[in-house]
Amino acid sequence: MDAFTENLNKLAELAIRVGLNLEEGQEIVATAPIEAVDFVRLLAEKAYENGASLFTVLYGDNLIARKRLALVPEAHLDRAPAWLYEGMAKAFHEGAARLAVSGNDPKALEGLPPERVGRAQQAQSRAYRPTLSAITEFVTNWTIVPFAHPGWAKAVFPGLPEEEAVQRLWQAIFQATRVDQEDPVAAWEAHNRVLHAKVAFLNEKRFHALHFQGPGTDLTVGLAEGHLWQGGATPTKKGRLCNPNLPTEEVFTAPHRERVEGVVRASRPLALSGQLVEGLWARFEGGVAVEVGAEKGEEVLKKLLDTDEGARRLGEVALVPADNPIAKTGLVFFDTLFDENAASHIAFGQAYAENLEGRPSGEEFRRRGGNESMVHVDWMIGSEEVDVDGLLEDGTRVPLMRRGRWVI
Amino acid sequence: MDAFTENLNKLAELAIRVGLNLEEGQEIVATAPIEAVDFVRLLAEKAYENGASLFTVLYGDNLIARKRLALVPEAHLDRAPAWLYEGMAKAFHEGAARLAVSGNDPKALEGLPPERVGRAQQAQSRAYRPTLSAITEFVTNWTIVPFAHPGWAKAVFPGLPEEEAVQRLWQAIFQATRVDQEDPVAAWEAHNRVLHAKVAFLNEKRFHALHFQGPGTDLTVGLAEGHLWQGGATPTKKGRLCNPNLPTEEVFTAPHRERVEGVVRASRPLALSGQLVEGLWARFEGGVAVEVGAEKGEEVLKKLLDTDEGARRLGEVALVPADNPIAKTGLVFFDTLFDENAASHIAFGQAYAENLEGRPSGEEFRRRGGNESMVHVDWMIGSEEVDVDGLLEDGTRVPLMRRGRWVI
Repeated sequence: MDAFTENLNKLAELAIRVGLNLEEGQEIVATAPIEAVDFVRLLAEKAYENGASLFTVLYGDNLIARKRLALVPEAHLDRAPAWLYEGMAKAFHEGAARLAVSGNDPKALEGLPPERVGRAQQAQSRAYRPTLSAITEFVTNWTIVPFAHPGWAKAVFPGLPEEEAVQRLWQAIFQATRVDQEDPVAAWEAHNRVLHAKVAFLNEKRFHALHFQGPGTDLTVGLAEGHLWQGGATPTKKGRLCNPNLPTEEVFTAPHRERVEGVVRASRPLALSGQLVEGLWARFEGGVAVEVGAEKGEEVLKKLLDTDEGARRLGEVALVPADNPIAKTGLVFFDTLFDENAASHIAFGQAYAENLEGRPSGEEFRRRGGNESMVHVDWMIGSEEVDVDGLLEDGTRVPLMRRGRWVI
Repeated sequence: MDAFTENLNKLAELAIRVGLNLEEGQEIVATAPIEAVDFVRLLAEKAYENGASLFTVLYGDNLIARKRLALVPEAHLDRAPAWLYEGMAKAFHEGAARLAVSGNDPKALEGLPPERVGRAQQAQSRAYRPTLSAITEFVTNWTIVPFAHPGWAKAVFPGLPEEEAVQRLWQAIFQATRVDQEDPVAAWEAHNRVLHAKVAFLNEKRFHALHFQGPGTDLTVGLAEGHLWQGGATPTKKGRLCNPNLPTEEVFTAPHRERVEGVVRASRPLALSGQLVEGLWARFEGGVAVEVGAEKGEEVLKKLLDTDEGARRLGEVALVPADNPIAKTGLVFFDTLFDENAASHIAFGQAYAENLEGRPSGEEFRRRGGNESMVHVDWMIGSEEVDVDGLLEDGTRVPLMRRGRWVI
């Protein structure tokens, strides 16, 4: 078996054993881009070798999505397969694990009218709600595993021929996910210990807010009442640990939807609805992004922020040390899962119930500052040039990061 | 556009406009083998050009199915994605059309232990029940469109290299579906008129039974009380016509589950659970196949007949003229959709409610002779050597077919 195939096998094994931490006899519901068939077959094989009872995969196809967005009358853009998403939510509530193979072409929907893309996306988000809450509320174990989609590879390595770009992207994925190490499963056990130690520290400190300072950034992010930091392996409602993101370098929690003040500038581009938003900046008052701009992709960004009232508020704040394996690739991945884990970040939209003690919902969730929205879009604000302090309620300032690295 | 691409486009157009007879704004739920991605994309394009609002495709993958059947412990074979099938049934009840892209490798599951294949298939049938009844009860418009799967092509043309076999199979599909004609949509309108005329004749006659005579066959098939012949374009419960089978040459109805007597020999092989059953014969008494045998594949056939009590009784009898375009290809297709439409046939298992006046269900369905089972497997008994008579209740004999051709 050549080195590439060996690493691909190690990544598939990692997804099942560490990402999902699959239970004996558990069913898996997988989603993947249609280009990932061979990798999905490898994942299915590892799943069955590790005790899965049934592996069902649902493929997405950007070419079909493009045809729809180009051809159908406006009103039809409001249709979405609620029957499918309700079925998926039912499967998760009945104990199936969720395996998302992710690796999209950031330019998949480029050239299509943003309002049509936005309208279809909103219908999609509405229909997907039951599934999203089953996932974000950790009703079951789930993970997102990366796939070197050709469109993605061309975005990351625009100058290279496709085949070479795909190979280079796989190498970066192996590095970012620690698959390039001798024993990735053991490497992840050690990695989880470090992340859990940071989480314990931050949860013990109970900071009132975080203060970010760097070029174009002077942002105070209030933290939700009874916020909980999470990071690394996460317990489901049934107490089973899983690693939702491969890779993951972040520790994250819920901001208070009303207590975000100041200005902030993105440190990396954001891939949104198949388009690239570059030079994103925002000014917050009372938790709301009252002013937002971007050098490129501003229209699709504003379309996102018009989704609902919560889309202009924050649902997540995350700390990531700038010297992590993803950042070390030196690459911009044009993919939120990677780029968000390469730098500290914040997210417009839905907060995660797991980031509030007792996983509240509805009125209690809102009362404590949890934000609600049909969207959740992470964008990166940390770098080697950004310092972060924790602010206690009494105003005491505790240095957390200097020049993007942990100092705790 | 070369001739092949033109014919493929004509087949996709035929599937949407004649197969589904798609309504403006209607959603489509498609199923397909994973090898059919490019053809599915063409179908999606035609669907959106003809008014579809949303096209969702669910892919099956024999390689993943094989891995499961080979690896999982026995008990896990009883799992099936009920959440998905219930979702599909819900979509159909809410008005989505069903598009099945069919073209399987008849040897896909060969070499796997039949009892494991059978056990997984039974679990699949149980979970698929709500979807199957929504389809067989014509809650919505549906069609099955053929795809020249490489595995299928190699079975039909064992001596040819794969690529050539696939091209030859596509040509046979184009011939069988009338796509090779100048205007396939018009050709199908004429074809439907002929089929509907036979249906009207047979429904007006109200035969008590049919008598089949040929080499190894002397079979009297009693017809269910208030049976209805169907053929060609079929109305859904909402009255919309669709052509469920592309191709279709048959007129068919429901036998009486208790009134089938005599012996019968298959005129073509039967592809069953990825295996080939050749030389199939059966002896019926009181509607039950009391004796069954086959020169090849007898074990998987018996596994099927053990599925439930109804599996040994008949759920369909169909008349097909021997001089139809499928038979004219001279090919054995190793695929029930084609082979059943190349010759008169009968089916073990579930009867179609549409073949009984008023589409009864439950007790009324059974009382009138409708058969119930988790399976529905057609096998071919007609040929140039088989004559068919209609028997009226008073014993009068009306010649219907001589040497396999209509004489009415």
